[in-house]
Amino acid sequence: MGKIQDMVKTLHKKADTKIVLLVADGLGGLPKTKGGLTELETAVTPNLDALTRDNVCGLSIPVLPGITPGSGPGHLSLFGYDPIEFAIGRGVLEALGIDLDLGPTDVATRGNFCTVNSDGELVDRRAGRIPTETCVRLVRKLRAIRIPGVEIVVEPVREYRFVVVFRGDGLGGNVDDTDPQVTGVRPLEPKPRDTASERTASIAAAFIEQAETILRDEHPANMVMLRGFARRPPIPSIEDVCGVKAGAIAVYPMYRGLARLVGMTILPPGSTFGEQLAALRANWESYDFFFVHYKYTDSTGEDGNFDEKVRRIEELDSQVPLLLQLKPDVIMVTGDHSTPSALRSHSWHPVPVLLASATCRPDHATSFGESECLRGGLGQVQAHYLLPLALAHAGRLQKFGA
Amino acid sequence: MGKIQDMVKTLHKKADTKIVLLVADGLGGLPKTKGGLTELETAVTPNLDALTRDNVCGLSIPVLPGITPGSGPGHLSLFGYDPIEFAIGRGVLEALGIDLDLGPTDVATRGNFCTVNSDGELVDRRAGRIPTETCVRLVRKLRAIRIPGVEIVVEPVREYRFVVVFRGDGLGGNVDDTDPQVTGVRPLEPKPRDTASERTASIAAAFIEQAETILRDEHPANMVMLRGFARRPPIPSIEDVCGVKAGAIAVYPMYRGLARLVGMTILPPGSTFGEQLAALRANWESYDFFFVHYKYTDSTGEDGNFDEKVRRIEELDSQVPLLLQLKPDVIMVTGDHSTPSALRSHSWHPVPVLLASATCRPDHATSFGESECLRGGLGQVQAHYLLPLALAHAGRLQKFGA
Repeated sequence: MGKIQDMVKTLHKKADTKIVLLVADGLGGLPKTKGGLTELETAVTPNLDALTRDNVCGLSIPVLPGITPGSGPGHLSLFGYDPIEFAIGRGVLEALGIDLDLGPTDVATRGNFCTVNSDGELVDRRAGRIPTETCVRLVRKLRAIRIPGVEIVVEPVREYRFVVVFRGDGLGGNVDDTDPQVTGVRPLEPKPRDTASERTASIAAAFIEQAETILRDEHPANMVMLRGFARRPPIPSIEDVCGVKAGAIAVYPMYRGLARLVGMTILPPGSTFGEQLAALRANWESYDFFFVHYKYTDSTGEDGNFDEKVRRIEELDSQVPLLLQLKPDVIMVTGDHSTPSALRSHSWHPVPVLLASATCRPDHATSFGESECLRGGLGQVQAHYLLPLALAHAGRLQKFGA
Repeated sequence: MGKIQDMVKTLHKKADTKIVLLVADGLGGLPKTKGGLTELETAVTPNLDALTRDNVCGLSIPVLPGITPGSGPGHLSLFGYDPIEFAIGRGVLEALGIDLDLGPTDVATRGNFCTVNSDGELVDRRAGRIPTETCVRLVRKLRAIRIPGVEIVVEPVREYRFVVVFRGDGLGGNVDDTDPQVTGVRPLEPKPRDTASERTASIAAAFIEQAETILRDEHPANMVMLRGFARRPPIPSIEDVCGVKAGAIAVYPMYRGLARLVGMTILPPGSTFGEQLAALRANWESYDFFFVHYKYTDSTGEDGNFDEKVRRIEELDSQVPLLLQLKPDVIMVTGDHSTPSALRSHSWHPVPVLLASATCRPDHATSFGESECLRGGLGQVQAHYLLPLALAHAGRLQKFGA
């Protein structure tokens, strides 16, 4: 564990206080045209602005300056983990994304259906993006695969993508992708990168061989490739590190999966933000820490839809009074990364963050937005320091040293 | 040593310059009511404000975001040491606190007088908080304890607390507390946590056994417990790391002890801040670096006395012209941590810092206070980087690399 997490693990103490971490996914943005206002600055957010004025804000650096995080590292750092130390493999993230629960020794991998010619050479790495219904049908066929000594779980994701989990003893997670990333050549053999992963590689090879036979008469999806072999990182629980009983309220499975990975209890989210807050209220007495995930600030950014991202931010803001009614001791609102609609993707830009508690010092920020947050008392801070700060404001950390 | 200290150790050079580090203990604060002014912002401090305007300021993070430091780590980081790497055990700090000088292999421990019943079970872990006079008398009795091959120093602290130092060869410092933290059970045996500490544990057990006999007829203090066994950390001297001859001017013993721990010469402080500055003047030619410790900004904060903390800050400010008369090349004014009177305790909030020298760049701060320091040129900086900055401004660091 990183230094700060080691300290928190030693210093945390019980307190009768509640912390809410509200993650507006991809919150940070960019102006439509240079020098203009970002999505968050354009949005009318009287409630978040008032919270910012009365408390403290700043900018969160999800990983390191210039580094654009995926959802995995973006969230792990908000949960207090050094996202470089606790890397989550792609196979694991894909499995979490369809609500698959992984055991500590399972190896998960992403599967692609693809098209090969009669010489076995790749013609289409995505099998013409077959519809999800075809994916479901073909996955059902792949479930006939049997390999002695290992349990195999195959689940469809969407279009040409599926997940395979190999469950058994002595399976290392370090196996090379079989996707050569180009067409005109045969898919690669699964090669182990260490001795601990030799058995995994040979099981993967057997899986691919049987899949080839099963899919021989299919078209265009007549072959599979496996990518992103990974095991769950051996991650200490948030209760162990921070001393909080944590509940997660997230509509999308991947975020529930990330929360489950750090030992949070998954609470029923409903499907709207209002229902998420209702779940928060219903479980208020049972947990110390709540992670509430709001997806739409990211998906609208990914769509490149500036105005819709603005609208989704305003929707979020309109519900803040419901959150305040619960009187949390600490509220933290931020994102796991920026998703500027101008870029239609995650970005490296620091993410606005506000922290509200009775022990906040005044700063110079008067509203919740990227440039006002530059005047905030939190400064620019690495994301994995935010949870320790929230714990401090919640009276949940003892003094370090005499 | 941390990265920066390693660099400083390699890069320091001689210069005919003088640095004054003025530590106003617990300087940082909080407003009385949310959104108001802190103690420092309330205080009328024309001299510190002028220094801030003409120089550079910022906020110091004593350890890491959210971490509240004790006085030990708070000062070590201002002396340029990574406070996590050089942790100071409780026994050592207690010994420093009564001006006991510790050798590098001494093991220091805190003693508690306590009350046990006829079965040896704890009835009162603090022996009814006996008056200090009783503590002094009982400590005198404990000095009769003899253990072959080891020198034993016993000194009273206050009420039920005393210090024991075991001085001899081959004494590790890793021994468990004998205080079980609850009553109704017998005190624990001193258990070694490593082989190097086995001898220490058996010496401690012999000490406790003899103490029990000596105290048998006393009441309520008829037994002792030992806690916080520790050796002095093997710490390189400030002269070795930074190339400065350093003198310390501190009224309270613990801060003299911390200064002695890093190899500073202890100068006679007198008892008022004016007398401390007189000591500074009297020793001006003999040292390159002066650590001046002002206690009252912390003690008033611990008392929860906002107005008195304000007054003590104003007292400090009024003496600044005397300091300026000496024409130090670099003045740094900060605290080892915040002690908001609203919290009556140390806190994790960053601490205002100002650095004055001929080579300061202008920044936007116009007075010395928490929120103005957010506009300062130092930004928010970990405390152990401040001394290297002071050395740089004093022309005492060479270029790194060609």
